[in-house]
Amino acid sequence: MSFNIPKSDKKRVVIVGGGFGGLKLANKLRNSDFQVVLIDKNNYHQFPPLIYQIASSGIEPSSISFPFRKIFQRRKDFYFRMAEVRSIFPEHKIVQTSIGKISYDYLVLAAGTTTNFFGNKSIEEGAMPMKNVSEAMGLQNALLDNFERALTCATEQERQELLNIVIVGGGATGVEIAGALSEMKNFVVPKDYPDLPNSLVNIYLIEAGGALLPSMSRESSESVEKFLRRMGVNVLLNKMVTEYKENKVYLKDGSTIATRTFIWVSGVTATPIDNMPANVIGRGNRIVVDEYNMVEGVEGVFCIGDQSIMPKGDPAWEGGHPQLAQVAIQQGALLAENIKRLERGKELKPFRYRNLGTMATVGRNRAVAEFKSIKMAGFIAWVMWLVVHLRSILGVRNKIIVFYNWMINYFTYGQSLRLILYAKKAKEVIDREERLAGSHWGDDLKSRGVDYNT
Amino acid sequence: MSFNIPKSDKKRVVIVGGGFGGLKLANKLRNSDFQVVLIDKNNYHQFPPLIYQIASSGIEPSSISFPFRKIFQRRKDFYFRMAEVRSIFPEHKIVQTSIGKISYDYLVLAAGTTTNFFGNKSIEEGAMPMKNVSEAMGLQNALLDNFERALTCATEQERQELLNIVIVGGGATGVEIAGALSEMKNFVVPKDYPDLPNSLVNIYLIEAGGALLPSMSRESSESVEKFLRRMGVNVLLNKMVTEYKENKVYLKDGSTIATRTFIWVSGVTATPIDNMPANVIGRGNRIVVDEYNMVEGVEGVFCIGDQSIMPKGDPAWEGGHPQLAQVAIQQGALLAENIKRLERGKELKPFRYRNLGTMATVGRNRAVAEFKSIKMAGFIAWVMWLVVHLRSILGVRNKIIVFYNWMINYFTYGQSLRLILYAKKAKEVIDREERLAGSHWGDDLKSRGVDYNT
Repeated sequence: MSFNIPKSDKKRVVIVGGGFGGLKLANKLRNSDFQVVLIDKNNYHQFPPLIYQIASSGIEPSSISFPFRKIFQRRKDFYFRMAEVRSIFPEHKIVQTSIGKISYDYLVLAAGTTTNFFGNKSIEEGAMPMKNVSEAMGLQNALLDNFERALTCATEQERQELLNIVIVGGGATGVEIAGALSEMKNFVVPKDYPDLPNSLVNIYLIEAGGALLPSMSRESSESVEKFLRRMGVNVLLNKMVTEYKENKVYLKDGSTIATRTFIWVSGVTATPIDNMPANVIGRGNRIVVDEYNMVEGVEGVFCIGDQSIMPKGDPAWEGGHPQLAQVAIQQGALLAENIKRLERGKELKPFRYRNLGTMATVGRNRAVAEFKSIKMAGFIAWVMWLVVHLRSILGVRNKIIVFYNWMINYFTYGQSLRLILYAKKAKEVIDREERLAGSHWGDDLKSRGVDYNT
Repeated sequence: MSFNIPKSDKKRVVIVGGGFGGLKLANKLRNSDFQVVLIDKNNYHQFPPLIYQIASSGIEPSSISFPFRKIFQRRKDFYFRMAEVRSIFPEHKIVQTSIGKISYDYLVLAAGTTTNFFGNKSIEEGAMPMKNVSEAMGLQNALLDNFERALTCATEQERQELLNIVIVGGGATGVEIAGALSEMKNFVVPKDYPDLPNSLVNIYLIEAGGALLPSMSRESSESVEKFLRRMGVNVLLNKMVTEYKENKVYLKDGSTIATRTFIWVSGVTATPIDNMPANVIGRGNRIVVDEYNMVEGVEGVFCIGDQSIMPKGDPAWEGGHPQLAQVAIQQGALLAENIKRLERGKELKPFRYRNLGTMATVGRNRAVAEFKSIKMAGFIAWVMWLVVHLRSILGVRNKIIVFYNWMINYFTYGQSLRLILYAKKAKEVIDREERLAGSHWGDDLKSRGVDYNT
C-alpha cells in the first residue's frame, strides 16, 4: 500500500509553512480546483503575538498552538505533512524535504523568519531566542529554574547572575516581554518567593537604536519607554551588545552586565531555502517578489509574508512592507485569488497593503496603538490590544482559556502556570532528530529505497 | 546575605516529596509549631491518576500540575526547595540533597516510587514509562510523531512498527491508557488521518498474570477485559515480555510484536535513598515502618505512602497496604497529628486504613468501581469515576478546564490538544542536568565553598 500523496487531475499547490500567511492561503483554497499540500516543521499553527506570555507563565502553550490536522479535518484534497523543506529544484518543480521529494504545480514559500544573531557565535550559543512556542517554553523553564537556584546558589555573584534578566531588542517582542517580566518581578516574586527580595531582580532592555519600537511613531516610543521605566525596567538605548561569555553580556561601551537569562529578540532573518537564484535574495535574506508575490524568473513559485520582500509594486510601500502578521494574511488571501485567476487565464490583482494599525502592550494596563492618523497610549489602547488578540486566536476553547488567564492575571496574578515542564524525549524521537541534524537529508530515505512522491 | 533556611526556635520537619502524602502532611502542619521544609524534584505537585490522559492528548499538562509555591503562598515558616534527595545521615540528622545538606528534627520520606524494569536493560533503554507528567508528555509526542511518520515512512515493515502500540502491565494505568488509545484509534485517527486506515493501528495490552486489574475482584477484571476487547484492544494474558530490541517486543513463548511505541507500566519500585539500614528495606524496595509510620531504629525518621510498607500493625492489612493515593493521603494526615502529639508527649495513634474503594476507567462510558461489598461496572461507575477525580484535582481553574476537555471529548473527540510540543532546553539547564547526572552531588557545592544549612 502506498501512502504517497495521490496524483490527481487537479493541479497541486504546495505551501511551505503554516503561519499566518500559509494558513490563510490554505483556508482560502477550500473548495477550489486544487490539491493542497501544507508542509510545516510542527504539527500545529502557532500564534506569535502571544508567545512571550508563555515565557512569562501567563498562558499555556496549548492555548496558542492549534493542530493542523484538527484545523483541516474533513477537508477534501488536502494533505498535511510534518517536514522541513531544505531545497528547491525549480527545473523539475520539486522541493526536497526531510521526508523526501514533493512535486508541485504551484509552490508557495511562507516559511517566515528565524532569529538573527548577526553571525555572532558567542551570542548564538548563550542567548535564548523566543521566536516560537518551543523556545518560549524553554525560556519559561529557565526563568523559573533560575529563581529556584537563586535561593540556594553558592555565591552572591552567582545569585546576581541568576536574578539579572537581560533582553536585547527594543521591538514589540522585547517591549512586551520586558513588561510581562517586570510584572512578574513586582507582583509574583514577592508572593512566590517571600525569602527572595525582589530588589535583587533587575530587568534590562537593551536597544541598539535611539528609541524603542523603532517602527512606530516617536510619541508611541516615548510612551512605551516611560511606561517601562515606571515599572522598573532599565531601558538602555543606543547600546550595542558585542559578546556574551562567562555569564556576562558585553556592551560596545566597555561595560558588562552579569546574567544567565540572556533573551535575544533583536532581529530576524528569512528562513533560507537552497537553490534559489542569488538575484532573488534581498534585504534580510528575504526572497524578492513582484506585486503578485511571484518570484521572478522561477516559474510557478511564490513567496508571501515575512519570508518575502516586495521592494517595488505597492506604491505606498516602496522598499518593502514591514514584517507583520497583517501583511502575511493579506498576501495569503490575495494569492489564493490570484492562483485561481491564473488557472482561469484572468488578469492578476496586484497586492496593496491595507494597514490596519500596529500595537504593543506593556503589562496589564498599558499599551500603545496606531491607526492611520490616530495614536493612542494607555488603558484604552490596552483594551483594544486585548480584544484584537483575543479575536485572532483560533478556537473558542482557546479564546475562553486565554481570556480566563488574562482576567485572573489582571485581578490577582494568581495563575497556576509557573511550572517547569519538560517533555521527556523518547529514544525514537532523539534518534530521528540526530539523523535530521546530520547531512543526510533525503539521502537517508533514498538509501532505504524511497524516492518519495516526485 | 544568606539565603539559607533560617534556624528557628521551632523544630524543623523536612518532607521529601510533594505527592499525595507529602502534600497532605504539609497542609495539615499549617499553623503548627513547626518549621516545614518541603523538598521535591519538580516545582509542582502532580496528579498521577490522570497522567495517562496527557499521553492520549485528552488534557493539558498544566491542568494536573500545580506549582508548590502557589499552593503555599502566604504560608508562614514554610520553605520549598526544588532538589533531589540522595542520602540520609541519621546520626547527624541531615539529608544530603542536590543543593547541599539540610538538617532536620523530623524527617518524613514521601518520595513515592519509580518505574520498575526488573533489571532488564533492553527494556529500560527502549521502553517508555508513564510515571510522571514529563514522561507522559514525551509519550504523547512520540505517539503523534509516529502517526505522522507512518504516512511517509520507507517500508511496510516500518509502518507497522510505527502503528503498533504495545502496553505492558495490566494494572489500572495499563487498562486506562489502553482504553484511551483505543478511542484515539477509533474516533480520532479516521478524522485526523483520513489517508491512514485505522485498521493498521493495533493496540496490545500484555499482562504477565492471568487477569487484568489483579488487585480488584474477578468480576471487575472480567468486565474490564470484556470492555477492552470490544473496543478492539488485543488483551494478552499470561504473557511475559523478555526483551525489546530492534523495534520488537519478545515474549517468553517465542512470539514477537513489532512496535516503536512500547509503553511500560508493569510495576514500580520505591524511590531509593542511600544510607538507610538494610533491615528496614522491605518488599519492592519499600521502607518498613511501624503502625505510626516510624522507621524503626532510625530516630526521628518517618516514611509514608508508596515509598513505605507497614507489614504489621494495621490488623486488616497484614503484610502491607496497596500502593494507592488514599493510603498516602490518610497516612499524611495522621502523621501530622502524631508529630504534634509527639511534641506534646501524648500517646500516638496507630494507622488504620479506611478503604474508600478503588476504580478504573476504560474509555468514555465505562468503568469499574468497588466499594466494600458493592461492585459496579459500566456507565454509572464511569460517572462516579469522573466525579471523584474531578473533585480531587487542585484548583477551580483546573477543574473547569479538565471538565471542559472531558465534555468535548465525550461528545466530539474534538479537542485541539494533539500537539507535538517540546520545551527547547536552555544551555544553562542542560549544563546543570549534566552536572546532576554525574557523581558530584554535594561535592560540586562543597568545592565552591558551600555547606548548605547544616
